[in-house]
Amino acid sequence: MYPALQNDSFLKACWRQATDHTPVWLMRQAGRYLPEYRATRAKAGSFMGLATNVDYATEVTLQPLDRYPLDAAILFSDILTVPDAMGLGLSFALGEGPKFEKVVRDEAAVNALHVPDMGKLKYVFDAVTSIRKALKGRVPLIGFSGSPWTLACYMVEGGGSDDYRHVKTLMYSRPDLMHQLLATNADAVALYLNTQILAGAQAVMVFDSWGGVLADGAFQHFSLAYTKRVLSQLIKEHEGVKIPSIVFTKGGGIWLDEMKDLDCQALGLDWTVNLGKARKAVGGSVGGPGKALQGNLDPNVLFAPPEQIEVQVKAVLDQFGTPHIDPHQTGPTQIFNLGHGISQFTPVEHVTALVQTVHDHSRAQRKSAAQAG
Amino acid sequence: MYPALQNDSFLKACWRQATDHTPVWLMRQAGRYLPEYRATRAKAGSFMGLATNVDYATEVTLQPLDRYPLDAAILFSDILTVPDAMGLGLSFALGEGPKFEKVVRDEAAVNALHVPDMGKLKYVFDAVTSIRKALKGRVPLIGFSGSPWTLACYMVEGGGSDDYRHVKTLMYSRPDLMHQLLATNADAVALYLNTQILAGAQAVMVFDSWGGVLADGAFQHFSLAYTKRVLSQLIKEHEGVKIPSIVFTKGGGIWLDEMKDLDCQALGLDWTVNLGKARKAVGGSVGGPGKALQGNLDPNVLFAPPEQIEVQVKAVLDQFGTPHIDPHQTGPTQIFNLGHGISQFTPVEHVTALVQTVHDHSRAQRKSAAQAG
Repeated sequence: MYPALQNDSFLKACWRQATDHTPVWLMRQAGRYLPEYRATRAKAGSFMGLATNVDYATEVTLQPLDRYPLDAAILFSDILTVPDAMGLGLSFALGEGPKFEKVVRDEAAVNALHVPDMGKLKYVFDAVTSIRKALKGRVPLIGFSGSPWTLACYMVEGGGSDDYRHVKTLMYSRPDLMHQLLATNADAVALYLNTQILAGAQAVMVFDSWGGVLADGAFQHFSLAYTKRVLSQLIKEHEGVKIPSIVFTKGGGIWLDEMKDLDCQALGLDWTVNLGKARKAVGGSVGGPGKALQGNLDPNVLFAPPEQIEVQVKAVLDQFGTPHIDPHQTGPTQIFNLGHGISQFTPVEHVTALVQTVHDHSRAQRKSAAQAG
Repeated sequence: MYPALQNDSFLKACWRQATDHTPVWLMRQAGRYLPEYRATRAKAGSFMGLATNVDYATEVTLQPLDRYPLDAAILFSDILTVPDAMGLGLSFALGEGPKFEKVVRDEAAVNALHVPDMGKLKYVFDAVTSIRKALKGRVPLIGFSGSPWTLACYMVEGGGSDDYRHVKTLMYSRPDLMHQLLATNADAVALYLNTQILAGAQAVMVFDSWGGVLADGAFQHFSLAYTKRVLSQLIKEHEGVKIPSIVFTKGGGIWLDEMKDLDCQALGLDWTVNLGKARKAVGGSVGGPGKALQGNLDPNVLFAPPEQIEVQVKAVLDQFGTPHIDPHQTGPTQIFNLGHGISQFTPVEHVTALVQTVHDHSRAQRKSAAQAG
């Protein structure tokens, strides 16, 4: 149905298989820092106009790949499409964050929530198929969703928040209602990701962007448990090809040990995490089990001049250390990424320096390792 | 010069000495959630009008102590007084955060910075002496400062920030300038805290509120190293009494191991940290060295009903476990606090529930331990 994959470095690294370079992609790589994105966005009229139009979504997903030799594509969409399909009414005012028409703060509102009909999200699945076709096998396509907890934050707060006051008030006052809300979200997210896989996504990622705002204990009960509920329902294989999954918890480095046993292939890490320590803790050994690690350059490094970007990118690769190079076994691998989404203020040529340094330096690392070994 | 201290539980806990209950105070305990604070603030006309007036600063510092049986007082002031004294022009627009007239983003601006004349901060030291007198020995008085890195964030950004883009751009582009700025800040902070001690502060706390936004590696070089520079210059004793110091790094739990050897008595922890694990990692054993641990209830717990607050407060005390009870030796101790400042939206009677639960449950813990031992 689709052309054969020409660059499988990202998928191989997800499965902890050796690759000739460290694959790299960037969270929010299709976005406002690209002039071509801003042009398409202007044509679309609004953010939702862009996200719900299959042609535009395809166009912007491919834009960063035409500019940079990235090793994966990620569906252009928003993490809040699922609560929107639940009937909460998502909108984006110009220059502001997402906003829901309805908020979920009491028993009646929680009881009214159900796993939405996937027909309401057809625009997402159509975009997945369209992008997969347009990629022509250049690189794999990643599908994604917000985590149950992260979606709950937006659904209860009604938008972004500084203090998560409303969602935590509900959680601490009525834990029963919060569990009900999270169970609905988890089942919806699992169905949403599975439908993306059926539509052509070759890997899926769960963004637990706000897991890190929770207290120890609350994180395990209200975020991690529902990420597990999502993972347990995911399709593991489609059309004879295994589908890897990635879990990214911003601010979750402190709970890395507890994420070791998640039923996913890779863990996304933010820049506060020491990759060398993370590799020891959860990266596994050659031949043994473990998680691929994705991350974790501070996006603000991209505001420095290219020479400094090169220094910092090499430091991240060196902190992880050389990925294993044995083609016959699994072992520790890194997928290079930022520790959070790329900033809209990033100079486009600075991304060139990043991608080139990842490719060049990671090849040099492997060459040294092969000579040493 | 001052009346003898009637409640020394906070100071004893700082020194890892046994106490009959776990002392408790709350970050930002003198603040907007108190109607009496809002009344004084209205009289003062502006936040800086409040902070720079010795009588008002004394009045609001004592307000929470009159309402709740807290075990320590903390100077009412702002963390940005030092850069204001450096000539950057601090102001607070109504309902908004702090703002500096001048920002520090280039070599000329960094070169223009110097350790300020402490005469410009006389209002702070006068407030310390006035509060110390007004306390009449009820509880000890904590002085404080922002950390060198946290002050730098505000000085470069010109106010609060979502992404720390400017300060990190400077840090990654011109690390030499950032080091120069941080060295100046560290020496200014040390002098500022020492002058507070001479004026009557019985303990001092360094707020590294934004240390947690740094990448691993950058945190050690640009935040922790300069906190160390502050600590190395602090007066250890005043008028025959030892002065303990506390370092609080919001989001710093991931680097706890690296804070173990700081030359301070206590570490402040936010709610993401598991207190049981932290006690094992840095709390030390009975008779051995270690750090007192301060924290770490999520301030959002205070929005739940009193019964739920009680459950969560007990959970925090139980997670730390019973502090040691041997009056002849040092050992693991906790100072109960929130993991960040109390919210302005907190219902006042909910704080009553918190303080009472800390005192009651921590006495019960010690009683059980004494019976078991």
